[in-house]
Amino acid sequence: MPIIQKIRIILVDTTHPGNIGAVARAMKNMELARLYLVNPLYFPHAEATARAAGADDILQNAVVAESLLEAIQDCQLVIGTSSRVRSLPIALLDPKEAVTKAIVEAKVGYEVALVFGTESSGLSNEELKLCHYHMHIPTNTEFASLNLAAAVLIIAYEIKMALAKAEEGEEGGDVFGLVQQLPELATVVDQECFYTHLEEVLIQSNFLDPKKPRHLMERMRRMFGRARLERAEINIWRGVLTELQKKMIKGVIE
Amino acid sequence: MPIIQKIRIILVDTTHPGNIGAVARAMKNMELARLYLVNPLYFPHAEATARAAGADDILQNAVVAESLLEAIQDCQLVIGTSSRVRSLPIALLDPKEAVTKAIVEAKVGYEVALVFGTESSGLSNEELKLCHYHMHIPTNTEFASLNLAAAVLIIAYEIKMALAKAEEGEEGGDVFGLVQQLPELATVVDQECFYTHLEEVLIQSNFLDPKKPRHLMERMRRMFGRARLERAEINIWRGVLTELQKKMIKGVIE
Repeated sequence: MPIIQKIRIILVDTTHPGNIGAVARAMKNMELARLYLVNPLYFPHAEATARAAGADDILQNAVVAESLLEAIQDCQLVIGTSSRVRSLPIALLDPKEAVTKAIVEAKVGYEVALVFGTESSGLSNEELKLCHYHMHIPTNTEFASLNLAAAVLIIAYEIKMALAKAEEGEEGGDVFGLVQQLPELATVVDQECFYTHLEEVLIQSNFLDPKKPRHLMERMRRMFGRARLERAEINIWRGVLTELQKKMIKGVIE
Repeated sequence: MPIIQKIRIILVDTTHPGNIGAVARAMKNMELARLYLVNPLYFPHAEATARAAGADDILQNAVVAESLLEAIQDCQLVIGTSSRVRSLPIALLDPKEAVTKAIVEAKVGYEVALVFGTESSGLSNEELKLCHYHMHIPTNTEFASLNLAAAVLIIAYEIKMALAKAEEGEEGGDVFGLVQQLPELATVVDQECFYTHLEEVLIQSNFLDPKKPRHLMERMRRMFGRARLERAEINIWRGVLTELQKKMIKGVIE
């Protein structure tokens, strides 16, 4: 399957339908094909079709989802754009780094999502927490209002350039030099089930007080997120948690 | 003087004022400042201001020129965008190569122009002949209709990324590694005066028949264009041509 087919662009809470069309056009200009829309305010819409300027197929095939989680549930790599250089200590990539990761992992066969937030304020912290990496497109700090289609265009352009170089052969093909036999990574759904289970156990253990969570789960997510859990590792963890729960219940009963 | 101040974006024969505004916004997003407009159909215009979304200073400082030659007359490096991979045997750069050249030469102090053609058909062959290099932004061959602001955005983004890496220091600073003591290059005006003089002499010598020019001058331009003539070399050539003319006139008289 072509690499392009493993990479999806996700727009979250898009307000203006014209922007959805402009994104479709930018994607098609650079040969991307898969568009996901999370809670678009208006879609389908005549303005989207008009601004797509012929990239109608991308709009027609767009997948509409009710939440970001739904749109990324089968993904192994999720990279979210961040307009601010946030204080969250999650790896912040520049566009080239993000695209290199995306292409290498798509080549291995992973499902890859590149996520763009709402026009006014970008991705929420909750949404950013669902991402393995954040990427930031450098702009003028005093005039950073890059529009949505412009952001997608830059990322799509980087993908096109990287793939073109890889196809040219050895000299520019650094990207594929990075492809190795990567392990079977957990999907987002695997991870979320694990986090839910972990939180449950941490609460049951009294280590985590739901009234004073002290960012404990965020820290857990960050740590496991950096590790990029494999499916087999998650299975091990789930087994551990289940056993712990049995023990704790037994303890209460005894 | 900052490198950015040595680089101008030139839009030729722009039809839609909204595109001029969108270009100004893309430039400001990426910290470019100098916009030249050759024969804009409408400028200034409310739609340009609206689409600039706050990049008004760039519009206010835009220089309007009557011809591309006027807009580039003081430049030592002119790179024109070409939407087609043309048959003209002039060096065709990708965006990264073009931007590397632009930055290196701007760093040396040359005036650099990046030229974008009209929305419908790009730069004319006459305009492309005035450029030292052509650059091509790779797009989907079946959907290549990149809009004007998108093309400028990609180039401006590459400039911003290259400068950011250069500022970071050694590791990414490949670009400035290329800066050497470059010679004083001829400006476009120097060159055009030379080409005019050369053509005159070629006609006077009967080598060039104005009724059957057989692309001779284009070939001359290409050859000298590849060589990137220095000011001193042009002066030598002008001297040679003048002497040849004296001899030819004398020959006719004798």
